[in-house]
Amino acid sequence: MVKKYVYGNPIETNAVVSQIEQEEGSVQYLSEIEINDKIIFNYAMESDDIVYGLGEANRGMNKRGGLYRSFCSDEPYQTEEKQSLYGAHNFIVVTGMISVGFFIDCASEVKFDIGYTSSDMLNIEPGCKDFTLYIIEGKSAYDIVKQFRELIGRSYIAPKWAFGYQQSRWSYMNEDEIREVVQKHRESGIPLDAVYLDIDYMDGYKDFTVSEERFPNFPEFVKEMREQGIRLVPIIDAGVKIEEGYEIYEEGKQYQLFCKKADGSDFVAGVWPGRTHFPDFMNTNARMWFGSKYKVLIDSGIEGFWNDMNEPAMFFTEEGIQEVKAYLDNFDFNTNEPGKFFELKDKVLSLSNSMKDYCSFYHNMDGNIVRHDQVHNLYGANMTRAAGEAFNQIAPDRRILLFSRSSYIGSHRWGGIWTGDNQSWWSHLLLNIKMMPSLNMCGYLYSGADLGGFGANCTRDLLMRWLGFGIFTPLMRNHAAEGTRRQECYNLGDTEDFRNIISIRYSLIPYLYSEYMKSCLNNDMMFKPLSFEYPTDNFARTVEDQLLVGESIMIAPIYEQNAVGRYVYLPEDMLLVVFKSSSIRRYQIMKKGMHYISATINEVPLFVRKNKLLPLCRTTQCTDNMDTSMFEIIAYTDDNIEYLMYEDDGISKDYDNPDNMVSFEVKAVDGILGAVSSKTIVKLSLF
Amino acid sequence: MVKKYVYGNPIETNAVVSQIEQEEGSVQYLSEIEINDKIIFNYAMESDDIVYGLGEANRGMNKRGGLYRSFCSDEPYQTEEKQSLYGAHNFIVVTGMISVGFFIDCASEVKFDIGYTSSDMLNIEPGCKDFTLYIIEGKSAYDIVKQFRELIGRSYIAPKWAFGYQQSRWSYMNEDEIREVVQKHRESGIPLDAVYLDIDYMDGYKDFTVSEERFPNFPEFVKEMREQGIRLVPIIDAGVKIEEGYEIYEEGKQYQLFCKKADGSDFVAGVWPGRTHFPDFMNTNARMWFGSKYKVLIDSGIEGFWNDMNEPAMFFTEEGIQEVKAYLDNFDFNTNEPGKFFELKDKVLSLSNSMKDYCSFYHNMDGNIVRHDQVHNLYGANMTRAAGEAFNQIAPDRRILLFSRSSYIGSHRWGGIWTGDNQSWWSHLLLNIKMMPSLNMCGYLYSGADLGGFGANCTRDLLMRWLGFGIFTPLMRNHAAEGTRRQECYNLGDTEDFRNIISIRYSLIPYLYSEYMKSCLNNDMMFKPLSFEYPTDNFARTVEDQLLVGESIMIAPIYEQNAVGRYVYLPEDMLLVVFKSSSIRRYQIMKKGMHYISATINEVPLFVRKNKLLPLCRTTQCTDNMDTSMFEIIAYTDDNIEYLMYEDDGISKDYDNPDNMVSFEVKAVDGILGAVSSKTIVKLSLF
Repeated sequence: MVKKYVYGNPIETNAVVSQIEQEEGSVQYLSEIEINDKIIFNYAMESDDIVYGLGEANRGMNKRGGLYRSFCSDEPYQTEEKQSLYGAHNFIVVTGMISVGFFIDCASEVKFDIGYTSSDMLNIEPGCKDFTLYIIEGKSAYDIVKQFRELIGRSYIAPKWAFGYQQSRWSYMNEDEIREVVQKHRESGIPLDAVYLDIDYMDGYKDFTVSEERFPNFPEFVKEMREQGIRLVPIIDAGVKIEEGYEIYEEGKQYQLFCKKADGSDFVAGVWPGRTHFPDFMNTNARMWFGSKYKVLIDSGIEGFWNDMNEPAMFFTEEGIQEVKAYLDNFDFNTNEPGKFFELKDKVLSLSNSMKDYCSFYHNMDGNIVRHDQVHNLYGANMTRAAGEAFNQIAPDRRILLFSRSSYIGSHRWGGIWTGDNQSWWSHLLLNIKMMPSLNMCGYLYSGADLGGFGANCTRDLLMRWLGFGIFTPLMRNHAAEGTRRQECYNLGDTEDFRNIISIRYSLIPYLYSEYMKSCLNNDMMFKPLSFEYPTDNFARTVEDQLLVGESIMIAPIYEQNAVGRYVYLPEDMLLVVFKSSSIRRYQIMKKGMHYISATINEVPLFVRKNKLLPLCRTTQCTDNMDTSMFEIIAYTDDNIEYLMYEDDGISKDYDNPDNMVSFEVKAVDGILGAVSSKTIVKLSLF
Repeated sequence: MVKKYVYGNPIETNAVVSQIEQEEGSVQYLSEIEINDKIIFNYAMESDDIVYGLGEANRGMNKRGGLYRSFCSDEPYQTEEKQSLYGAHNFIVVTGMISVGFFIDCASEVKFDIGYTSSDMLNIEPGCKDFTLYIIEGKSAYDIVKQFRELIGRSYIAPKWAFGYQQSRWSYMNEDEIREVVQKHRESGIPLDAVYLDIDYMDGYKDFTVSEERFPNFPEFVKEMREQGIRLVPIIDAGVKIEEGYEIYEEGKQYQLFCKKADGSDFVAGVWPGRTHFPDFMNTNARMWFGSKYKVLIDSGIEGFWNDMNEPAMFFTEEGIQEVKAYLDNFDFNTNEPGKFFELKDKVLSLSNSMKDYCSFYHNMDGNIVRHDQVHNLYGANMTRAAGEAFNQIAPDRRILLFSRSSYIGSHRWGGIWTGDNQSWWSHLLLNIKMMPSLNMCGYLYSGADLGGFGANCTRDLLMRWLGFGIFTPLMRNHAAEGTRRQECYNLGDTEDFRNIISIRYSLIPYLYSEYMKSCLNNDMMFKPLSFEYPTDNFARTVEDQLLVGESIMIAPIYEQNAVGRYVYLPEDMLLVVFKSSSIRRYQIMKKGMHYISATINEVPLFVRKNKLLPLCRTTQCTDNMDTSMFEIIAYTDDNIEYLMYEDDGISKDYDNPDNMVSFEVKAVDGILGAVSSKTIVKLSLF
């Protein structure tokens, strides 16, 4: 049951697709106070209430004990106290004796104090008085999430090839470097489906250009890679370089498609290309115009994109630098005020992404002039929308891979997200694990983190363990920043281990893709906290580092350095399968309860749930060669069971065709359990 | 068996006290290569070797998988990739099939690559060619540590009152604020023994001055506090303010006791007081001079100090600021080089504690002129030595509390350390747990972290859990930075929980102090990894988040937000005691093996080892009132057992008096187990 309360005159965010009648009268569940011209909602939590949600947010799966600020931020250094990450996903569910969900649909910042100031008090503080509040009642947290997902509409669906292993680095600098990356994967037998083009593939960081020096014949090169089973995925940045004669710049200027300052001039900030303008993605014409530009790359054979820097990230403005200069000119070495020095540091550090700059430019929302800070959280989402809507024009019959750094709920219908610039920290592997269900709750199904970590230097064991989790996430991309240690698998020794671990992914793809597609089509979650499946199990409620992945398996990733295993809680009897490669496995039936499981650095444990089955295909070097006619079945069963696998060509949009469902059945014939399917079953392992 | 190898002509570090003959011939265990005029030692680790040591260092108890750089650094933002913290403790033990210890006694930086570049390779790279290498052979890691501790001499011994709960903040600004802190603790019944004076107690941040405005009659105020059972503990910073007429400045200048630049002028950097000089602690006269200055505060009734900013931390130099200015003047807004902006940020951030500055001043080591970078790691240690040696003159018969931020092995004989500026992060609670045994290995027994975290904002639950560990560390101090949320217990709600948790500490003090003193007197460890007591238990080797504290107990702190318990491994049968307060407890005998234990936010679990006993005294509001004539005994036993408790007046230095040992015995009399001691046993709980 969804109730809608409108405050003031909200800006349209496009988050919600369902038509819902507006409630009259005061809100239920929340008390409401007005302080300093702001509305603050309060909710008194029970001591054992859990708070789920907030999508791409910091800290645990249970959000209690933290402060959160939905304000899309370029925040690569995600330490525990950070309140804002790249996305703004204002949906939470409080669950305990009663369960209730809240979605604050608000284009400006929203603050959540979830038991930080006072352990049992939840405060929600929208940054403006114009917003819509949705209150969702349901019989459980999971039920509320599913209602919410209905409300916001079907998630973007990625092509199947995007479930292959993908390799990225800021940046592979030219054709030869990319050829080498591909060749080294192929030589080592490490499967690979895509290589990413970070900012240096462009000519002077100019969107929709390709450096002729680095890629003299780009369409030819795209084709060459495609013949090796590799897709190239270029980055598109939000900012447009100011350069006379550069088409995008000239058009944007001419047709008034950039964000403007109060004086009517185009807003300028320094980003990768130097001085840039920002397309006004809040404007329909600007979206259509910018979206249409992707065509030049699609025409070159490109099948996927990642939209970046769209919070928008701004390094500095000229005004900011002038302020620092003036400050330094007045800096007195003989001052007795030591704090002065820290003021200088703060001034320099806060040059980037400053609120002052965000308050200094404007959008033309189809006639309505709005200051940026008031719609900040929609900017990246509307860049995604610009691309997504354009793709429906440019390639109406096939899926284009698209994911974004910044997002607001609603953009999940046009693209996925990756979780932005993280670090090569063990704690960020854990953050990745805890974040996946939250992302699913908010509609982001095609998602994943930079495996191995973007910033800082990765170690071999960290990458191995991170891949041990990453083989389950739809987006499985190894990405690293300029200046960091080379993070491609073949650069970290003993490539056999990497080949083996990624081979597991490829044999899991039919299952993972099936579960992903069913989640998309049914507005469901692919990654679930244990409590969503075992709501009456009080211990399961406390588990934050194990996840259900689809209907058949539970995972318990290892995320501590030098660990040789981990504790795991089984909410029911399950079959432990420890993979050393796609084909080398050991099995153990484990009873409901607590266990310690061993797994060396080159082993990946997963658990098959009782009376569920896991279909595995033969591993391949890329998804092009996947053979989905033959399967091996692992099942833990004492009864007849059925698994419905979604399967399609992975590229067309005929999602809802009932022929896409393939049945695998294990059933007793003459008292003997056996498996049947329209697929060939080459091996059946029953436990 | 300790072997000593001398390379070049090492600078005397005073780390080692034993006279050991120098070995001739090549070193054992390590291979040695010379690259770029540096010596690199290599050791091939077995895949399951564990590497302990490095004292105050980042990451796990097992140091494998990381890069470490011993270079005392003002590093409050201790994220996983950071290689240097405040101390430099170059002692490691590799243990597996064979065990061997290495101590690189080297005044300049030393780098350790412990399986970072290549999983099984350990590299040690001293920053210069003049150093002493000690190789220690022994039958176990623990045996090697004890030999090392013999080698470096008996650790500093703190007064017993320093085992009380201590409250700090940067800064309590005046008498009234401190009175309020004390009063609020006393009113809430939260025990308290000391309040800290951070930098603002001084007059203009001038060492050995007290602001007359804030503390108009300091000796009187010290006395007033003392009468309430409170010791005031002032900070002493390394840098001396440049100010005409300020005695310390004038004397230092006159007698040439400051560090100098190449041109013979006194080196200047900006720190808290503004422009400062740095006492040349490497010089005997400077040490004696600076040490003698503590007398003015001791004469005012002060009984303890913390030495700070002695890496030395430097915010900036004039030369550095001028460089930034010049850079900004040439900053071109129209540049197409985006990296330029990050260069600016880097330039500003690296103004502080820059290597360039460390290479620009010199020490006079009693005639030998040495550039700072070559002896950088000894600077803080020699400030500790200056104070410690002075205290032996000023107050020869009693103990003065002393601990330092920066340290080098050797300084453990003159003072303790705290682990420097940390953050209110759950991960820093875990870091605190993992670091305690490493600190003990390197001689630092009086130690602890800033409970609740120094930087960032603490939550109630984080402080509760951190105190749940902090009640076991010798230094138990709650400390927080300017600008952060108030972190005194009474500011975080429900003071009863805080009173209860700290009351547990006070009933444990006789045991903790006894174990601390025995560790000091016997060159032993108070905090031990499980593997040190259970060397043949392969699982115990992998446990990083449980510690043995003294001979009778094992602890398993809870360090995850929203956790309601944790998994724990028992290497033998033990008695679980869950404390809700000093007197409210529940007990459970638990079998060797893996368990999940529940502990709500206001509960502290500990484990009494089999056939060991834990004496508890009645809790008090401060150590002055501790009654150590009466004890309650908790014992888990099926046999006669004895516990030897060290006890003394807590202030004099008659450590080795055999009368300081009190025996508690549980034995069978007429077939019934009972307890005897020269102490009154008011309650005996036998399990």
